[in-house]
Amino acid sequence: MSATLAMSSILAVDWGTSSFRLMHIGPGGELLGILNADKGVSRLTPAEMEPFLQQQITTMGPDVSGLPVILCGMVGSAIGWREAPYVDCPVDPARLASNLLRVPSERLQACIVPGLRTLSELGQPDVMRGEETQVVGWLAGASAAQKASAVLCLPGTHSKWVRIENGEVRNFNTALTGELYAVLQQHSILARGEQQEDPAAFAAGLAASAASPSLLHLLFSTRSRMLAGLHPVSACASYLSGLLIGAEVGAALAQAQTLEEVHLIGGKGLLQRYEAALAHYQVRAISHEGDACSARGLWQLYRASQAA
Amino acid sequence: MSATLAMSSILAVDWGTSSFRLMHIGPGGELLGILNADKGVSRLTPAEMEPFLQQQITTMGPDVSGLPVILCGMVGSAIGWREAPYVDCPVDPARLASNLLRVPSERLQACIVPGLRTLSELGQPDVMRGEETQVVGWLAGASAAQKASAVLCLPGTHSKWVRIENGEVRNFNTALTGELYAVLQQHSILARGEQQEDPAAFAAGLAASAASPSLLHLLFSTRSRMLAGLHPVSACASYLSGLLIGAEVGAALAQAQTLEEVHLIGGKGLLQRYEAALAHYQVRAISHEGDACSARGLWQLYRASQAA
Repeated sequence: MSATLAMSSILAVDWGTSSFRLMHIGPGGELLGILNADKGVSRLTPAEMEPFLQQQITTMGPDVSGLPVILCGMVGSAIGWREAPYVDCPVDPARLASNLLRVPSERLQACIVPGLRTLSELGQPDVMRGEETQVVGWLAGASAAQKASAVLCLPGTHSKWVRIENGEVRNFNTALTGELYAVLQQHSILARGEQQEDPAAFAAGLAASAASPSLLHLLFSTRSRMLAGLHPVSACASYLSGLLIGAEVGAALAQAQTLEEVHLIGGKGLLQRYEAALAHYQVRAISHEGDACSARGLWQLYRASQAA
Repeated sequence: MSATLAMSSILAVDWGTSSFRLMHIGPGGELLGILNADKGVSRLTPAEMEPFLQQQITTMGPDVSGLPVILCGMVGSAIGWREAPYVDCPVDPARLASNLLRVPSERLQACIVPGLRTLSELGQPDVMRGEETQVVGWLAGASAAQKASAVLCLPGTHSKWVRIENGEVRNFNTALTGELYAVLQQHSILARGEQQEDPAAFAAGLAASAASPSLLHLLFSTRSRMLAGLHPVSACASYLSGLLIGAEVGAALAQAQTLEEVHLIGGKGLLQRYEAALAHYQVRAISHEGDACSARGLWQLYRASQAA
C-alpha cells in the first residue's frame, strides 16, 4: 500500500436477512470492535435501515462516528436499504470494488457491495449476495496456486459452490440444503419429536446418499429406517442432515470431477458436518472462519475502491 | 368362482391419514354405493374409529347393515383402529389375503389389510400401507405379460414405485415428492405469492431435472430463474412441480433401466403430470384410476380370504 493510499479505519457491515454485524476495522485490516444485532433486513423497512445503522454506530462509540461505511449482504437487495445491481461473472475483486454502490446519505459516507450473477455449470441462472465478500476475503489470503484454481463451498441456508479460476469468480451454484433441512425438520413427517445430535445416524445418512444418486427416493428412509429400528426417533434429524449434506457434497464433487480439496467458509458447527462429508469422499477440506472472511473482504473491497 | 364360494355383497373401506371412503360392493365386484368423509385416521382417536365406522354404515342405509367389512390404509397403522403387522416382500395377493387381520368387534365382522415391508433396491427398508390394495386391484386386471414383469408408480404425498415379478410385489421404493412439494411451496422462499398453473414452467422444470442429476443444486433455480425473468413469480410452483416430478421419474427410470412402460395408479390431475414426465423420457404411461383399483383390490382380497 503506497503512502497516497493510507487508509483511516473504516466501519464494515455484514447485514443479512436475519442478522446484522457492525465491525470497526483498523488501517491495517485489524478488527478493532464488533457489534452484533438480530435486526436482519427482513425485520426492518428500507426507510428504517439508515436510522438503525446510525444508531448502532452511535452505540459503538464516539471514536467511530464519521468513518466511512461499507456494507454487504441482503442490505443491497430489493428488500434492503438500497438495491445494488448484480455484477456478472466472471469477476475479480478489482471489478467488484469498482461497482460498489454509493448510497446517498446526509450523515453517512456509505457504499454497498453488489451481489453476483452467473450462469451456473448446470445451465441455470444463479445469484449470490453477501458470499461474494467472503470469497474476496478468502482470495486475499489464498496462495497463488489456490487463486489459479480452487473450489469453495460456503454452507448455509443456501449453500454456494464457487469455482475460482485465475483470481476470478468463474461461476457458482446454489444448493438449497439448509433451507430444505429446516422445512423438512419443522414441517414434514420425517423428524417428529425431540431430536438429539447423533453422529452415527449422521454418518449413516452420508453413506446412504453416497450409495444412491436419488435424494428424493432416499428421504423417506429417514422414517422407514426409524420404523425398522435402525436409528432412534430422536436421531431422524441427524440422519436427514447426513443425507442432505452428503447429497449436496456428492453432487458437487461429481460435477467438479477429480477434485483434491475444497475450501469451506462458514461457522464452525456447520463446517464440521461438511468436513465429515468431504472426508467420506476422500476429499481434503480446508476450513476458513466465515466472519473473518467477511471482515477481510469488506476491508479489501473498500481499499480497492479507494485505489481506483 | 365355484358355487361354494358364492359371495354376498361386502363393505370395503379405504381409510387413509386424511380421508375415509366407504364402498358397497356387489357379489360380482360391482360398485353399488360410495360414501366419502373427511375423517381420516389422523382426526380420530383409535377408540373413536369403530363408532365412526358404524355410524357411516348406518348412514349408507339399512340394506348394508351386517355386511362383512374389509378395510385398508392407515386404519391398520399404529395410529389406526388396530395395528396390522407388515407383511414382507415378495408377496402375492393370496398370501396378503391370508394375513388379513380380524378385528374383534361386537357389531361388525371386520378385517384389515396389512401393509407391506421391503428392502428396497436402494438397500433401504421401506413400507407402504394402502397402496398394496391398489396393486392387488391392478394385478386383477393385468395381462399375463404384465403380471410377469411390470413397474407401477403410485404418485402422491409419498409416491410408491413398485416392481412386479411373477404376479408378486417383488419390492418397492418410496419417493417423498408430494410432501416435499407441499412443504417447499408452503414454507420455503421458492414459491411465494399467488401461484397459477403454468404448463410451460412445468415443462421447463422437467427439462431442467432431466439435464442434471442434482436436485438439491437445481431447487434454487426455481427462484433464480424467476429473478432472471425466465418465468413469472406465479409460475414458481409449476416449475418446482416439474423439477420434483422430473427428478423422481428420472431417478426411478435410471434405477429400473431399459423400461418401456410404467403403469400409473392414482387421481387424474396428478397422473397427467406424471404422464408428461414419462413422455419426456419417451416411456409409455398406462394410467389407472386409483379409487377403482382400491375397490377392486379390497374385493379381491376379501374373496381370496374366503376361498382360503
